[in-house]
Amino acid sequence: MGRVTIRRRVTRIVDGADSRPVDTLAAEEPLEIRVNGRSLVVTMRTPGDDFDLAAGFLVSEGVVRRAGEIAGIRYCAGATADGGNTYNVVDVVLAAGVAPPDPSLERNFYTTSSCGLCGKASLDAVRTVAAWPVRDDPIRLDPGVVSTLPGTLRAAQRVFDRTGGLHAAGLFSAAGRLHCLREDVGRHNAVDKVVGWALRDGRLPLRDTVLMVSGRASFELVQKAVMAGIPALAAVSAPSSLAADLADDAGLTLIGFLRGSSMNVYAGAHRVVRRERAGSR
Amino acid sequence: MGRVTIRRRVTRIVDGADSRPVDTLAAEEPLEIRVNGRSLVVTMRTPGDDFDLAAGFLVSEGVVRRAGEIAGIRYCAGATADGGNTYNVVDVVLAAGVAPPDPSLERNFYTTSSCGLCGKASLDAVRTVAAWPVRDDPIRLDPGVVSTLPGTLRAAQRVFDRTGGLHAAGLFSAAGRLHCLREDVGRHNAVDKVVGWALRDGRLPLRDTVLMVSGRASFELVQKAVMAGIPALAAVSAPSSLAADLADDAGLTLIGFLRGSSMNVYAGAHRVVRRERAGSR
Repeated sequence: MGRVTIRRRVTRIVDGADSRPVDTLAAEEPLEIRVNGRSLVVTMRTPGDDFDLAAGFLVSEGVVRRAGEIAGIRYCAGATADGGNTYNVVDVVLAAGVAPPDPSLERNFYTTSSCGLCGKASLDAVRTVAAWPVRDDPIRLDPGVVSTLPGTLRAAQRVFDRTGGLHAAGLFSAAGRLHCLREDVGRHNAVDKVVGWALRDGRLPLRDTVLMVSGRASFELVQKAVMAGIPALAAVSAPSSLAADLADDAGLTLIGFLRGSSMNVYAGAHRVVRRERAGSR
Repeated sequence: MGRVTIRRRVTRIVDGADSRPVDTLAAEEPLEIRVNGRSLVVTMRTPGDDFDLAAGFLVSEGVVRRAGEIAGIRYCAGATADGGNTYNVVDVVLAAGVAPPDPSLERNFYTTSSCGLCGKASLDAVRTVAAWPVRDDPIRLDPGVVSTLPGTLRAAQRVFDRTGGLHAAGLFSAAGRLHCLREDVGRHNAVDKVVGWALRDGRLPLRDTVLMVSGRASFELVQKAVMAGIPALAAVSAPSSLAADLADDAGLTLIGFLRGSSMNVYAGAHRVVRRERAGSR
């Protein structure tokens, strides 16, 4: 374990002249997630917090919503050529009575038999599967606090500082306190690790929290927030059209281009406190 | 079609004060790729160049390697509630004699039955499936030319300028000429669109070219380059450890942190011309 970073000698070229320094790279390895012994998915991830990643993935896919629905998680004894465990295969054993996912679930989440595949069908699928209504969450967001989130996230990103190669997801309170930070070569994995940590810590649904992600906000990230009961998602960069549509549909507050003291609110803007209103009362 | 961007009214907050401008978002919609009528995968992508995306995906997965191996590609008549085609389902009909992919192919590409899942197994899988040896490609890379690629890519990125939300992949000649640029909310889709364009244009293997991507270089992107016969991949940001390992294994030149006149070469540095050597002759 502990393979979060890998050191590697590289050829550095500056103005055509070269040197051979040692660089630190973000580790990437495949992780196979099995459920009740049956292979469900393989994801390329940064090793570490693998049980959280597996648990969070199952929350995102609507398979589990409480810690008690998972009886156990373990590394399978997949052996390398020299007999060591690769620590790249985890098996999640579901509690009695919890239905295992259909192996073709990832496809089914998006497709319906009743109409052509489209964005609306994708929104419908999330609405059907989501366990908690984030629309009703009364969280209020102070722009002054929201503006501090990227800095707090960045300061806590220890691995990024060494590699420049990791996405981060941080779960914050409305007051701007960081509950949990995870980093990964895959943005979706970082979010799954946060959600899995919360599930296993008995914190779902994640009411009254803000999920902050480095980079952009896709449909998939909004989906994961909704499935975990998170009422607000903030991103450093742009959201996609379907991310904004899903946020609207689910009643999630979606903030993008969060830079300095400015931000764009793409959905759920009623939760963001505005200065004018405060001043006019 | 033509849904590459979507205009949307947002709440913009600067120093706590708000306005309601119209923002332009990168469009994201699901695309289901079918092969011979059978569903293979659903990817969230930016609409446009969908036939290239489907064709490139099949090259990446080792299903086809020549334009003639595809008999035809068409949009399926998946209907929305009001009867319109969603243009979100494409069916690729393979030529007679071309074996369709196993539906569980995505998993099988990474896993082997003989050992535990690990990075090495992932490298082995690519080595087994790859059709062209990029190791033998004699391309020479001039750092002065390579340094111009990010600027050329950025200048050609018309959609990014409006949305800030798209990844780009550009295929260049060794002389720095842009052959093909594609943008997408998913970096892997942008690369598949470039490769699919090349396949359908009869250009595979893509000898003597450099693929330039915005952002980071993952295992998956190096895999796609290798499968298309591209001998060099350059990224603005960091590669992962497994991306560098695969590049080494396949004999692909991998450049990261390409900024200004500096760059790090993680694999295949012998192809990059150095000033010292030129001067000492």
